[in-house]
Amino acid sequence: TEVKKIAVIAGDGIGPEVVAEAIKVMKRTEELFGLKFEFEHGLFGGVAIDEKGTPLPQETLEICKRADAVLLGAVGGPKWDNNSKELRPETGLLGIRKELGLFSNLRPAVVFDCLKDASTLKPEVLEGTDLIVVRELTGGIYFGEKFRREGAYGEEAVDTCVYNVTEVERIVRQAFEVAQKRRKKLASVDKANVLETSRLWRETVNRIAPDYPDVEVEHVLVDNCAMQLLRRPSSFDVIVTENMFGDILSDEAAMLTGSIGMLSSASLGEGSFGLYEPVHGSAPDIAGQGVANPIATILSVALMYRLTFGYGEAADAIERAVKQVLDAGNRTGDIATDRAQALSTTEMGDLIANAL
Amino acid sequence: TEVKKIAVIAGDGIGPEVVAEAIKVMKRTEELFGLKFEFEHGLFGGVAIDEKGTPLPQETLEICKRADAVLLGAVGGPKWDNNSKELRPETGLLGIRKELGLFSNLRPAVVFDCLKDASTLKPEVLEGTDLIVVRELTGGIYFGEKFRREGAYGEEAVDTCVYNVTEVERIVRQAFEVAQKRRKKLASVDKANVLETSRLWRETVNRIAPDYPDVEVEHVLVDNCAMQLLRRPSSFDVIVTENMFGDILSDEAAMLTGSIGMLSSASLGEGSFGLYEPVHGSAPDIAGQGVANPIATILSVALMYRLTFGYGEAADAIERAVKQVLDAGNRTGDIATDRAQALSTTEMGDLIANAL
Ligand SMILES: CC(C)[C@H](C(=O)O)[C@@H](O)C(=O)O
Ligand SMILES: CC(C)[C@H](C(=O)O)[C@@H](O)C(=O)O
Repeated sequence: TEVKKIAVIAGDGIGPEVVAEAIKVMKRTEELFGLKFEFEHGLFGGVAIDEKGTPLPQETLEICKRADAVLLGAVGGPKWDNNSKELRPETGLLGIRKELGLFSNLRPAVVFDCLKDASTLKPEVLEGTDLIVVRELTGGIYFGEKFRREGAYGEEAVDTCVYNVTEVERIVRQAFEVAQKRRKKLASVDKANVLETSRLWRETVNRIAPDYPDVEVEHVLVDNCAMQLLRRPSSFDVIVTENMFGDILSDEAAMLTGSIGMLSSASLGEGSFGLYEPVHGSAPDIAGQGVANPIATILSVALMYRLTFGYGEAADAIERAVKQVLDAGNRTGDIATDRAQALSTTEMGDLIANAL
Repeated sequence: TEVKKIAVIAGDGIGPEVVAEAIKVMKRTEELFGLKFEFEHGLFGGVAIDEKGTPLPQETLEICKRADAVLLGAVGGPKWDNNSKELRPETGLLGIRKELGLFSNLRPAVVFDCLKDASTLKPEVLEGTDLIVVRELTGGIYFGEKFRREGAYGEEAVDTCVYNVTEVERIVRQAFEVAQKRRKKLASVDKANVLETSRLWRETVNRIAPDYPDVEVEHVLVDNCAMQLLRRPSSFDVIVTENMFGDILSDEAAMLTGSIGMLSSASLGEGSFGLYEPVHGSAPDIAGQGVANPIATILSVALMYRLTFGYGEAADAIERAVKQVLDAGNRTGDIATDRAQALSTTEMGDLIANAL
């Protein structure tokens, strides 16, 4: 079997703890499915700022570039929040997306049975919710020119939102393809009644839609989408949108499932390369205590197997193992009703690895 | 008593129907409270496009400019959705905001007792929710330079987001003042970890916060705010944010109350001038049937009385009359459990006018 190279950037807070369990599960799948991985670790985020003076050291970038996939824990924490821009973990995150050409972020928002009641939405509204947000990740206002200048009314700040038709087309095509493998419904979200970039976005969607005749497309204005996610979450299948809107809507969508601590994500570029990470953050408040929930990271591995490597069988097995362990009533503190009975991070990782 | 001039722009869809009831209520308050209004009507939105070839005719603008306050119904509808930019109702809306200097949009999101169950949120989460979004309305990406150009990767679209410190300061100060009259909590929402305009915004909030020592300030990133509105809506008091984020978050906040059809809004400039309108749209599907709910528009009059004219007593009376009529079980179709028993628009208006 071919050896696959995995760049591991555990990052800050609970990152190293949850990533360790994901690797444990990967190693178990090596034995069971005859897979072979080579792991190379890199510093990233706050820990890289502390040790190397930059959130994204060149060495880490190279580890990622020679890998087939990247497994990321989480970055950031209060310690670095007041740093100057160059010395902030987020800057590393934007840098790695751009440098690795990860133009697409897939964020499935699903409801876990055991967390049904954790949502603030009524169960009957949530029923059947299973959507995925496809967010453009390397363009728009995140990466356009930014500067300050003196104007007639004092200091001015400027951000520029730019999209070219090629960028829009590649992300929209990807979203159509994702929709084709799901319930074949695509909601394209923009603000075409105000923004020029949104008008280009909408034109592009309309131009290429005929190439995907089996997919039903609707255009939804971003403000309306923020409402409809609350009103009829289960009616969405795939949502595709630009970087800034995607940041907001994917978090709203994740939160309304009540399952945010269990959700995984994939950031993809051209070809099969991808970066996989849990949606939850670095949770500095519980870092180092061995109580974090590793499931979102373990499920990110399942995404990696499916999307980067085509290891469908092993991906299915991981998802089944997680379900089985949860169905048997095993819980980490964040999802436990009785905290006293809660498992540690490594206990949960062991259970899932053994259930494979 | 001094005569106050009201510009009435009923607009499209159900606009004329709900505005008529609001005027009915205003006339009743003239008798009861010794107020005196002079109404001048102007064409606006789709109807102005049809009759005058522009969504915001010069004449309408002048009616607004010589008025003390503007009462707006709603604009837009499918008929004009595919028009070119200059011939779209939204363009008129952006134009009127800019021309009248309405830099601040206040959108209270409250829960009406009779609509508690209409929310998709669990009642225990919604309990006590009473917040107001203060949205900057004449700056940011809405009004910055927009254009197309040819680039290395094909056609490009550009939107520019600009804020100067004066614009930020005036809206933030207003939000602090709103907070001082409420529960004294201000959440300032930005994306300071990515945007330069957000960094200017945050610096400005921090600089002027000491002038309002009684107000507790928190900075919330926009993606996090979209989540926290779902998780802990009742913990928010006043939310202040820039134009684009405010568009999204105010709609999310309104929807989560379940009361969106009953919510009113105010757009204010320097001085006491203001434009008042219901949050709901033109509802073309039920236009002309006499079944629309006029309550949001009637409550917009209460906001006008309080914020523009200082008619606190009459404002209280309107709000009390609405409550009394609802408590007695009267409902229009949108809020009725039994549609067969639903009142017409004019019946609801009459009841409220008589209850004053
Ligand atoms: C940390 C921040 C820059 C980042 C973003 O806005 O993209 C985060 O919110 C995310 O969604 O991954
Ligand atoms: C119609 C549109 C231009 C407008 C806006 O985005 O401001 C609307 O959504 C609103 O919130 O009043």
